[in-house]
Amino acid sequence: MWQIKLERENEISLSRQLFYAMKDLILEGKIQSGEALPSSRGLAKDMSVSRSTVNEAYDMLETEGFIVTRQGAPTRVKEGLYLEKHQKHYEEVLFPVIQGSEQSFIVDFKTGQPDVSLFPRYVWNQMMYKAFEQLSDNDLGYFGTAGYEALRVEISHWLFRKRGLSAKPQDIFITSGTTQALSILVTMLSKEGVPFAVEDPCHKGLLEVIESSGNSILSIPVDQEGLKTSLLNGHDISAVYVTPSHQFPLGSILTAERRIELIKLARQRHFYIIEDDYDSEFRYRGAAVSPLYALDSEQVLYTGSFSKSLYPALRIGFVILPPKLQANWMYLRKHFDVQNPIVEQAALTAFLRQRKLDKYIQKISRLYEKKRLALTQAIYKYFGEQCTILGDETGLHLVLQVHGAKFDEVFVKKSQDAGIRVFPIEHYCIVKGDHLDQLMLGYGHLKIEDIPKSVSKLYNMIMT
Amino acid sequence: MWQIKLERENEISLSRQLFYAMKDLILEGKIQSGEALPSSRGLAKDMSVSRSTVNEAYDMLETEGFIVTRQGAPTRVKEGLYLEKHQKHYEEVLFPVIQGSEQSFIVDFKTGQPDVSLFPRYVWNQMMYKAFEQLSDNDLGYFGTAGYEALRVEISHWLFRKRGLSAKPQDIFITSGTTQALSILVTMLSKEGVPFAVEDPCHKGLLEVIESSGNSILSIPVDQEGLKTSLLNGHDISAVYVTPSHQFPLGSILTAERRIELIKLARQRHFYIIEDDYDSEFRYRGAAVSPLYALDSEQVLYTGSFSKSLYPALRIGFVILPPKLQANWMYLRKHFDVQNPIVEQAALTAFLRQRKLDKYIQKISRLYEKKRLALTQAIYKYFGEQCTILGDETGLHLVLQVHGAKFDEVFVKKSQDAGIRVFPIEHYCIVKGDHLDQLMLGYGHLKIEDIPKSVSKLYNMIMT
Repeated sequence: MWQIKLERENEISLSRQLFYAMKDLILEGKIQSGEALPSSRGLAKDMSVSRSTVNEAYDMLETEGFIVTRQGAPTRVKEGLYLEKHQKHYEEVLFPVIQGSEQSFIVDFKTGQPDVSLFPRYVWNQMMYKAFEQLSDNDLGYFGTAGYEALRVEISHWLFRKRGLSAKPQDIFITSGTTQALSILVTMLSKEGVPFAVEDPCHKGLLEVIESSGNSILSIPVDQEGLKTSLLNGHDISAVYVTPSHQFPLGSILTAERRIELIKLARQRHFYIIEDDYDSEFRYRGAAVSPLYALDSEQVLYTGSFSKSLYPALRIGFVILPPKLQANWMYLRKHFDVQNPIVEQAALTAFLRQRKLDKYIQKISRLYEKKRLALTQAIYKYFGEQCTILGDETGLHLVLQVHGAKFDEVFVKKSQDAGIRVFPIEHYCIVKGDHLDQLMLGYGHLKIEDIPKSVSKLYNMIMT
Repeated sequence: MWQIKLERENEISLSRQLFYAMKDLILEGKIQSGEALPSSRGLAKDMSVSRSTVNEAYDMLETEGFIVTRQGAPTRVKEGLYLEKHQKHYEEVLFPVIQGSEQSFIVDFKTGQPDVSLFPRYVWNQMMYKAFEQLSDNDLGYFGTAGYEALRVEISHWLFRKRGLSAKPQDIFITSGTTQALSILVTMLSKEGVPFAVEDPCHKGLLEVIESSGNSILSIPVDQEGLKTSLLNGHDISAVYVTPSHQFPLGSILTAERRIELIKLARQRHFYIIEDDYDSEFRYRGAAVSPLYALDSEQVLYTGSFSKSLYPALRIGFVILPPKLQANWMYLRKHFDVQNPIVEQAALTAFLRQRKLDKYIQKISRLYEKKRLALTQAIYKYFGEQCTILGDETGLHLVLQVHGAKFDEVFVKKSQDAGIRVFPIEHYCIVKGDHLDQLMLGYGHLKIEDIPKSVSKLYNMIMT
């Protein structure tokens, strides 16, 4: 009677299909307000279904208030339920189209991409398996915004072992990475109308974290000694975000004098220093640099991440906070996303405890060192005295300065057309024009054997 | 000479121990500005270590700018590096004390706690293991803020199967749960000075998500037909947050009339409806209620979570968004925490594809139904006609109304002292005083055999 078509070979029960169809007809006004419905017996016969199928559909319609049944009276459609349609047709669901991903490049010097091909996947997977097996029922519940306790202890030991940091487990808070840490810290530290100070140039995504939460920016230039701390003097700021161990993107190390100046300023003017130690576990020349946090654990908020050393889709990082900020952190994190998932935290606990991460970083550092060498050699071979290499002692990227070059929008377009992805340092600059001859080259993900060819292509593209 | 004590049985190398110790002495002013350091040969002899150990320590000090070496001149401490100490002593790290957890209760009617004891842990763990094994290297990288594509497809099918929803995979965005979904939506939809409308009473944590981001609240009372939608009339709001399938905490179902009124209002006044479908997969009486989203996929933003059906520490949920909000969502999520981790997403994909979740929900629903029955029987046994039970058709909690009772602060204190945890509905009320005789009892986590005893204790406590 209403041209309802039911599919018998469908995972959705017949009664439910009937319910959906009748509901649509009521909302579209095709079965009208106040209209009496046929008896379940009649409709069942008409549709060649069992009477209980119709009764179930009627029950669903009644539960949702689309129809009214009264003892001894026919079942009727409720008044005033007509609603103009917006709804998509459900058949579209059966042929999902998900948008394709971004352009692929022949040569790609993207950054922030570790090489996961050496990652001991099998061992890690075993550890996840065992860790999950051993969890208590409580561990599967809401076990805490601060993070898995055993992991906080292991990170404390790890930090002391690798970075010379003394941080108590109860001051270490697990995050889903530095983006989250910064996002919460910015919410926490923001003073109405007072800017956050950042290095210029700096990481675009993290700059956007500050901006997207409605805060203004005070940009402080960076030179070969890191942030020009003296330029902070006299400014009122909500906090300063710095990368003292390996400035992003220029690669400079903040000198001891500037470190001390920065901390003295922070103490005098009561602002916090957010220290992002994003890649200093990979260091190729000289000794590792101590974090700023080692100089002052009250004024410095230290953030770290395991995304670079394990794999980005792990989503585990941490922040070290002084006691007076901890309650506020917990409150905010609880209302951001409650807590991290458990299995990665439990597996990382074992991975740290058994010193697997120490060994893996040793191993992968040797590989990165080879890539760095291949890259710098190829650069010198092609660019020779036309260039300077900066910031290559640490991490997974370096800066190529080509004297007299101008890496502007025209250049970016040209390189894209050539299938080469490079990022001019200007891309990361807040005040434009001071770093036009510099490119950032990420090499963590490259294959060693491809590096010379890639540099040659880059050289030809720049020089023609 | 400086009373430095090195430990040979330490994981930290001797050179690094020496470096830390000297750095501290410089910062404390015990080795003074401009002071010449002993030759590496001399210090090595003095400390009974190798000369290379001292050289390494000196290198580290130089890298960080604590000392200056010049050809032919003694190595000297740099000027102006004295810094008053704030630092904790590192030995504390070795004996971590993590604060104990909250009070434990003899009888605990807490809510939001599913029973994970029946969860097919072994099967799930196998699925995580296999899923991780099969991931590509790209899947371990930053694969996308929207979520794992295969999971978006499976959730689309799941929603159609279980909830009668037609949502395209590309409109489904993976979240770490409803808290995160709401947090981002509130940031996205907030209009300066315009409140968010919420049900009164409502979930405290989610109310705080709105408040903690600096937004004001318009509270709209709830009755047995759900939100009193007509009271929204004439108000300008940023958006409204509702739980139409099982009002939290009262348990009412929003009627068809009010659903249609709400959608018409939203269309007229251009506000979005945030629909939280937090537990309707567990339904014991009558047919499942269709989501509001089924009536209007442009105006309704639907959020769901797998925390209740699998386990809370899974941290996977989703939100369905119309195309015009998607770019903004992606931008904000990227700056909140980038994306979910991969392994849970990949495992859930298989769990849904193989209909394991369907089977598990069927199984656990039967258990919850038994618990519900045990609870309602015990309540009727003890409270008899003194009480009414509300909102028990769905979910993992119900509301106990005890006629003439007054569940106020005094009562909460008294029950705490008796080791009984219950939550008065007043606890969730924005406007106080209208629900003084109602208690929310969560039973998902209770053991069936404990239920009668627990209710008896509750009864005695209330009646004495």
